[in-house]
Amino acid sequence: MNDFVFQNTTKIYFGKDQLAHLGEEAAALGKKVLLVYGGGSIKRSGLYDKVVDILKNAGMTISELGGVEPNPHHTTVNKGVQICREEGIDVILAVGGGSTIDASKVMAATVVSDTDDCWDLIMNKTTSPGALPIMTVLTIAATGSEMDAGAVISNVDTQEKLPYVSPAVLPTVSFLDPTNTFTVPAYQTAAGSADMIAHIFDVVYFSKQPRMDMLYRIQDELLKTVVTFAPIALKEPDNYEARANLMWTSTWALNGFIFGGVEQMTPCHMMEHELSAVYNITHGHGLAILMPRWLKYTLNDDNAWQIKRLGTNVFGIDASLSDREGAEKAIEALSDFLFNTLGLDSQLSDLGIDESHFEEMAKKACGPTGVIEGFADLTPEDVVNIYKMCL
Amino acid sequence: MNDFVFQNTTKIYFGKDQLAHLGEEAAALGKKVLLVYGGGSIKRSGLYDKVVDILKNAGMTISELGGVEPNPHHTTVNKGVQICREEGIDVILAVGGGSTIDASKVMAATVVSDTDDCWDLIMNKTTSPGALPIMTVLTIAATGSEMDAGAVISNVDTQEKLPYVSPAVLPTVSFLDPTNTFTVPAYQTAAGSADMIAHIFDVVYFSKQPRMDMLYRIQDELLKTVVTFAPIALKEPDNYEARANLMWTSTWALNGFIFGGVEQMTPCHMMEHELSAVYNITHGHGLAILMPRWLKYTLNDDNAWQIKRLGTNVFGIDASLSDREGAEKAIEALSDFLFNTLGLDSQLSDLGIDESHFEEMAKKACGPTGVIEGFADLTPEDVVNIYKMCL
Repeated sequence: MNDFVFQNTTKIYFGKDQLAHLGEEAAALGKKVLLVYGGGSIKRSGLYDKVVDILKNAGMTISELGGVEPNPHHTTVNKGVQICREEGIDVILAVGGGSTIDASKVMAATVVSDTDDCWDLIMNKTTSPGALPIMTVLTIAATGSEMDAGAVISNVDTQEKLPYVSPAVLPTVSFLDPTNTFTVPAYQTAAGSADMIAHIFDVVYFSKQPRMDMLYRIQDELLKTVVTFAPIALKEPDNYEARANLMWTSTWALNGFIFGGVEQMTPCHMMEHELSAVYNITHGHGLAILMPRWLKYTLNDDNAWQIKRLGTNVFGIDASLSDREGAEKAIEALSDFLFNTLGLDSQLSDLGIDESHFEEMAKKACGPTGVIEGFADLTPEDVVNIYKMCL
Repeated sequence: MNDFVFQNTTKIYFGKDQLAHLGEEAAALGKKVLLVYGGGSIKRSGLYDKVVDILKNAGMTISELGGVEPNPHHTTVNKGVQICREEGIDVILAVGGGSTIDASKVMAATVVSDTDDCWDLIMNKTTSPGALPIMTVLTIAATGSEMDAGAVISNVDTQEKLPYVSPAVLPTVSFLDPTNTFTVPAYQTAAGSADMIAHIFDVVYFSKQPRMDMLYRIQDELLKTVVTFAPIALKEPDNYEARANLMWTSTWALNGFIFGGVEQMTPCHMMEHELSAVYNITHGHGLAILMPRWLKYTLNDDNAWQIKRLGTNVFGIDASLSDREGAEKAIEALSDFLFNTLGLDSQLSDLGIDESHFEEMAKKACGPTGVIEGFADLTPEDVVNIYKMCL
């Protein structure tokens, strides 16, 4: 196995009676807070009012930026940067899911840099010496952004969707209350569950790199947790156990612990980011459509045992099958879970996507090196083939 | 499940080529370092020389305190406190196992307090406002002290062994190099493995409190990792995979992650601390002798399913057995693992312990409330009964 460094300093308040601590935690970070949120679901659910009351009672001055898009736009981030500078904001509070948190992270880093345009940071035209402190109140279990140091931002002008990663944007404090996800619609619950699976698959579960057995076992259990509780959350949206298990699993799928020195490009994410950059689809849904096809395309005699392991350890496939047969059954079981159990549409054509942009998206997905390195190295030609399998 | 707070800020360098980073990390914390170690095995292994070279090259001034005992004495801690104050130490570097790290932690807290005697802190006669920063280079997989905020210190005058817990003594940086455990003798490897199992059992695996399914599954896997790799490490002391899996498991058994809001007194630890306070036995060995008897004593129709789960999920016991039968088989499998596979002596009498102090030890173990609360509440009478089962 490879050497690695692990550190994750985010403080997590987990549970249904924790939000009262928001006041003391915010006040410890400053006086002026920028409250960032998305399309307004937090106003309908009453969470917005609760948060504002707590912040006011803690003596905070509140500025606001609502309307952060799914696949958040760099122009929205730039609006936030302007508010932070004009108002002298001390701390950013993201109340929402991955998009709201990601936008807040890049905002926080841009504010303390020498540019007004966050895209300069993402394109490495300049660097930031740090970031404003970030707090989050999570409202959907999916991206793990609440306890990681990365963010993904879209530029609608250039149709690019690109990551920003810096230890400075790791949230200081995150509030994870499963009851805040009771109102997440079935479609978003399903897409979020696919996103968790994709994080585990893409970063570490399917890899050519050596890995630590203990962490491999834990990855199995995180996957099994999703497979167990996502269907329950879909049937009973206010099942606390199901929502709590999904929420904590989403966090640990991407906070660094399970990686243990395995570092690779994230093939499904690279391919999906191009889809959502051009077609603005839901990230987790794009991943769900891609994952089984990617596995089918890359399956060979050398890696079949890894795909079979998914089958036996997560989906209960017969361990006595050959690696190849077991792998094929595993891919079937995964597809059945994603498209029948979770109920996600299985084809890109269902989302209005045709092959007209496949060539250019595949080239962008492979980046300047022309190869997505990972479980199997993918060229633009491979990526086009995988996209076509998804039509 | 219960609400909980999780935060653990320790930075971990894991692997065989990480020690070079010790210099930069130490220098970031100050100029003057106190190097704390135990009986001298680090001199025989060459680790001492490596550490000293790296610190000198980083421009650090080094003071030393060697000879920290297993079950470290409060008088040794006090010696360290005196050195820290006389030399104006900025940072404490513990090179060793749980005893060395625990002694360093209480030293670090006492230095910044208003007393010369660490026992005042442990007895709550005074409090410390913080602690000097602590670094560790771990040399045995066992206690998890390298990434937790607790320490246990012995007072040989009063025959007491008591904990000190403070977020301030959480190590800032820990170096976990599995090759540093290649020379750990078989007996200590076995006792350390029993200690890991005990942490998982005692804090959370066996509990009356509600728990999160995802974390329960992960506890199974940590236990399976110990059961898989401890026998390999015993047969092949320089097996990197085995040592690495044990090392990282010992850390995650006690760093807070798997607890998830389950908080209870740690019954086997409470009972064992009395044994090692009076008889100075190896902590992990005492735990190994106690654990199966404790489970046998507390087994009832309500909790049998939990003990059976250990059997089916960790030791491969037939899942179709009744809860009660499964639990009995699980206890047999656990005993077989601890006493036959790990080769630890199974009786307190093997360690020269008779029943002469059982009454007083049982009273102390139950503390001022007279009850150890946990999986099953234990009175002094229960504790005596369990001790007697171990003779």
